[in-house]
Amino acid sequence: MATPNQKRLGVLTSGGDSPGMNAAVRAVVRTAVASGWDVIGIRRGYNGIFTHNFVKMNSRSVANIIDKGGTILGSSRSNRFMDSAGRADAVNILREAGIDGMIIIGGNGSLTGALELEKLGMPVVGLPASIDNDLVGTDMAIGVDTCLNTIMEALDKIRDTASSHHRAFIIEVMGRNCGYLALMASLNGGADVVITPDRTPTLEEVSQMLRQSRTFGRSHAIIVVAEGSSLKSDEIAHYLTKEIMDYYETRLTILGHVQRGGSPSAFDRIIATRLGARAVQTLLSGKSGVMCGLVQGRLCETPLSEVVGRVKEVDAEIYELIRIMSH
Amino acid sequence: MATPNQKRLGVLTSGGDSPGMNAAVRAVVRTAVASGWDVIGIRRGYNGIFTHNFVKMNSRSVANIIDKGGTILGSSRSNRFMDSAGRADAVNILREAGIDGMIIIGGNGSLTGALELEKLGMPVVGLPASIDNDLVGTDMAIGVDTCLNTIMEALDKIRDTASSHHRAFIIEVMGRNCGYLALMASLNGGADVVITPDRTPTLEEVSQMLRQSRTFGRSHAIIVVAEGSSLKSDEIAHYLTKEIMDYYETRLTILGHVQRGGSPSAFDRIIATRLGARAVQTLLSGKSGVMCGLVQGRLCETPLSEVVGRVKEVDAEIYELIRIMSH
Amino acid sequence: MATPNQKRLGVLTSGGDSPGMNAAVRAVVRTAVASGWDVIGIRRGYNGIFTHNFVKMNSRSVANIIDKGGTILGSSRSNRFMDSAGRADAVNILREAGIDGMIIIGGNGSLTGALELEKLGMPVVGLPASIDNDLVGTDMAIGVDTCLNTIMEALDKIRDTASSHHRAFIIEVMGRNCGYLALMASLNGGADVVITPDRTPTLEEVSQMLRQSRTFGRSHAIIVVAEGSSLKSDEIAHYLTKEIMDYYETRLTILGHVQRGGSPSAFDRIIATRLGARAVQTLLSGKSGVMCGLVQGRLCETPLSEVVGRVKEVDAEIYELIRIMSH
Amino acid sequence: MATPNQKRLGVLTSGGDSPGMNAAVRAVVRTAVASGWDVIGIRRGYNGIFTHNFVKMNSRSVANIIDKGGTILGSSRSNRFMDSAGRADAVNILREAGIDGMIIIGGNGSLTGALELEKLGMPVVGLPASIDNDLVGTDMAIGVDTCLNTIMEALDKIRDTASSHHRAFIIEVMGRNCGYLALMASLNGGADVVITPDRTPTLEEVSQMLRQSRTFGRSHAIIVVAEGSSLKSDEIAHYLTKEIMDYYETRLTILGHVQRGGSPSAFDRIIATRLGARAVQTLLSGKSGVMCGLVQGRLCETPLSEVVGRVKEVDAEIYELIRIMSH
Repeated sequence: MATPNQKRLGVLTSGGDSPGMNAAVRAVVRTAVASGWDVIGIRRGYNGIFTHNFVKMNSRSVANIIDKGGTILGSSRSNRFMDSAGRADAVNILREAGIDGMIIIGGNGSLTGALELEKLGMPVVGLPASIDNDLVGTDMAIGVDTCLNTIMEALDKIRDTASSHHRAFIIEVMGRNCGYLALMASLNGGADVVITPDRTPTLEEVSQMLRQSRTFGRSHAIIVVAEGSSLKSDEIAHYLTKEIMDYYETRLTILGHVQRGGSPSAFDRIIATRLGARAVQTLLSGKSGVMCGLVQGRLCETPLSEVVGRVKEVDAEIYELIRIMSH
Repeated sequence: MATPNQKRLGVLTSGGDSPGMNAAVRAVVRTAVASGWDVIGIRRGYNGIFTHNFVKMNSRSVANIIDKGGTILGSSRSNRFMDSAGRADAVNILREAGIDGMIIIGGNGSLTGALELEKLGMPVVGLPASIDNDLVGTDMAIGVDTCLNTIMEALDKIRDTASSHHRAFIIEVMGRNCGYLALMASLNGGADVVITPDRTPTLEEVSQMLRQSRTFGRSHAIIVVAEGSSLKSDEIAHYLTKEIMDYYETRLTILGHVQRGGSPSAFDRIIATRLGARAVQTLLSGKSGVMCGLVQGRLCETPLSEVVGRVKEVDAEIYELIRIMSH
Repeated sequence: MATPNQKRLGVLTSGGDSPGMNAAVRAVVRTAVASGWDVIGIRRGYNGIFTHNFVKMNSRSVANIIDKGGTILGSSRSNRFMDSAGRADAVNILREAGIDGMIIIGGNGSLTGALELEKLGMPVVGLPASIDNDLVGTDMAIGVDTCLNTIMEALDKIRDTASSHHRAFIIEVMGRNCGYLALMASLNGGADVVITPDRTPTLEEVSQMLRQSRTFGRSHAIIVVAEGSSLKSDEIAHYLTKEIMDYYETRLTILGHVQRGGSPSAFDRIIATRLGARAVQTLLSGKSGVMCGLVQGRLCETPLSEVVGRVKEVDAEIYELIRIMSH
Repeated sequence: MATPNQKRLGVLTSGGDSPGMNAAVRAVVRTAVASGWDVIGIRRGYNGIFTHNFVKMNSRSVANIIDKGGTILGSSRSNRFMDSAGRADAVNILREAGIDGMIIIGGNGSLTGALELEKLGMPVVGLPASIDNDLVGTDMAIGVDTCLNTIMEALDKIRDTASSHHRAFIIEVMGRNCGYLALMASLNGGADVVITPDRTPTLEEVSQMLRQSRTFGRSHAIIVVAEGSSLKSDEIAHYLTKEIMDYYETRLTILGHVQRGGSPSAFDRIIATRLGARAVQTLLSGKSGVMCGLVQGRLCETPLSEVVGRVKEVDAEIYELIRIMSH
């Protein structure tokens, strides 16, 4: 039972799930409880506000979830929250439920919603959770490291097969507007060619790079493609099947939704726990309208207005590093 | 150096690679060496015979490969081996190289080739290596168990996501003419519906099963489809996207070539090692034209003529077990 | 609610936990529910009978547990169940709770208890769950395959280090009275020497084998010791540290309780599910006092009286195979 | 063949191996080759200098090693390098071999050696590789992230068992003079108590914390101990076995050498590759006597004289975070 003056915190996860969301929810709940707050979990994202899908949470509610993928609070799209009347309703419902502040865990779309709630007077702190690593305001979002490890393990397996058969494998990884996953996967998986929304070679250039790599004595080739690239993975497969048939047999694999799942890695559990605790402390200190992130190895806050609608740039030097390493 | 009377064994891997092929090659080589044989590895499958792609092997050649996926001997298709003149050439080349017997590691196509070599007078013993588990003459082929674990881990990851978003996931797994992987993956991954070349429900039945599973209170649905089923995974995805939109959002993932890779599991290393040693002993005992397999927990031989061109049936009771478990 | 004539099944897990116990509980519950039974879970092993630690179970109670290690029903020792008066009390308590039959999941000690319950008139079917694989009546107990994979992964990691430093590693694995895990781990992990309760070389013989393996050009040595061997791992470490210091630096690692944990492997989920379903069908068919197992690839029943108090023998040929493979 | 003016780089790994050393060697070799250098690998650490254990390396020498644990160059102790006469000999041998600069990959001891070489006039750049994360000058050393994941997976497995049996598990992890691994493992593994060289509670305090955690409704307890703590893991086990027997059964597991092994994680492959390339560029730019590291998310150099002989401090806030999370 909440005492008369006890503050009440709402927490929700939204958008595509990412590994470590549960670790973040756990940290939010336990830190809030330790600070004397009452905690309400809102299920199924912003939609849960309208359906009053609320659940009282305590330290036991988040036991044994630090190692679980997905989100115990669920997630879904909410059309009603998309328009301003809906958002005004949402704030009223939250207030009627006695909620004094919200922590919103998710990606760019979810944090855009958080900023809107804040504008309507609800104290809000955001946490970056997204496998794409496209969020400004944090060097790594919650879930990115696990996703990189999942992709890397898939590439390690595919190399076994590629190498046994002298094959060229085209691997499509997630990343709608950001090439981070494709780039880092290429670095870790020993790729010959990487194709991202930022840098897209022509088909001729791809084929030229593969011919060249063959001359280095390589027994196989790996081409990593971010899903959001203008040059599509199936186009590349179609082109290369004929173009480099004297060098390699071409195969295409789209990694798909396995990239979102899995028990969070050590790094993701650490940042989820640290950021979850930080978000509660930030709200407690009276700040609102910010996202907590990890910048240059330190926890810090960035205004949501500087986060939403932008896409973080990747380090251009990585492209050159991949090129040197592919020799 | 081979002494005048020393027997010389040839070993090759052929067809699609499967995890544990290297463990089998290692066991073949070390058992043959311990039996006083000279061993020649033939690289790149039957094709390597024509290109004289031979490599002398000893115990050190197979050090540190028991845990590696793929095959160090490589694999490829050989058109020349497809016709009888080519096969006659192959036997002559092997004889000129002083090879007294062959061990062929692979799936149905590879063992068909083995039988042809045997008919031309070359002593041959086959070993079953294939992720499909469609081979008659062995309860489990080398690579199946690793593949099942790879699929299972992918399903575990996808369930994280499916459950967080109330989604229906269609997962296409390998298996061109055999539903074994799909069936066992369904059992291990808690699938609601399984679709195999042997048993293919109609689209209406699939949708009916999913509606029913929803009434059991399930938060997500998993449909596993063998690639060789007459009902294709993308057709199912297209149909369900509209048909069950009130229940679940539909998503499709094709697991692809990750299923062939990875460090072999404990089970695959054990059977690969035991069968590799057995194959050498079988050849040494004067038998030929057989495949060594694991039948009812014991190593035994089956004539290659009873193995090739057939497809093992899966246990029909498993379908019923999956149905009961999906409630 | 149980209808007047509805049968009521009790299920408990007992003894050391093993991966796949939860998959077995899930299969027992869902099969029983599908057969119209009422199911009661008894928590914390036989002890839970005395403390009336009963929980009504349905299909939802066992959702999302197929991939979880340990046992959701818990386990513990029960001194009271050790004497005959206690066991008579236990049967009375079970009868008062309306339980018509029991399924007991565990190892040798647990199945001994099952046999005692049966002698007192309670219908009982046992399921073999134990990482040791010492149980007569099943080729593989539930949990063994996962444990073998856990040990194998540890050995793969240790070989990385051993090989970099020219070290001899002594690895102690579980197995109080049975060398199965040590033997199979040696086969999978490329061990030079295996020491089991059945076959214990002298310290001099161990050192001789290592000197010999060095002459084969090996860069490291692995000695696997079953915990129940008469020659103890720390004795060996102490002896070898000086004895082979010119060849290798000696290190000892006791793998410990990680061997019991982890998400069950594909094989363990399959046999746990099949055996769990089979146990319910067996009880339903009127049989009692038996354990369901997997013998020569088929499910079958063995009288508990033939199971308890015995130790399965391992295949002696494996020792010879390990010797040949270590060259 | 080196051309008359071609620079020649030596590279060695030294000290305890850590995952990612091979990825670093690969990056060093490929970057140096791309920069027109000749590369000599020195095997078995500093010892290999005296034994002229040199191997010419090119891009192919480091193919397929990015995913391998351990170090292909090997490592060992060198007593001769410990005294100044030996080190003078070493520099002469390196000069005679035409080596113009060295890259040394290892921990504190190895980098101390690097500084000594530099003082004798040999250009040297160091790279931090150590699972302990005790090195000043880098936020994360190469290997730490993989090690954290290995420990985390072991803790996840042990929790399965601990939770099933109401046990208190004492887990000893590596860390001779630094509590980093113990702290982060505690955060990731949901530990109740952490014991490090920096902060060592009394036995009474440990037992008090466990009694308290029991009152929070926890079903098990985890105590993580760094090996270098003044309070030893076996002492704690001995004390708790009696002291908390009414709450929990106590068990001890020493994780041991598995912590050093395994395929490097995504993070370790990234930093190893980036730092390896950076080390070559640093040497090429004329700098010497520095270690390349990752500080606040950026690559930078720190003088070896500021690195050696010091121990990095861990963030004191983590202790408080673990306390809050254990509730």
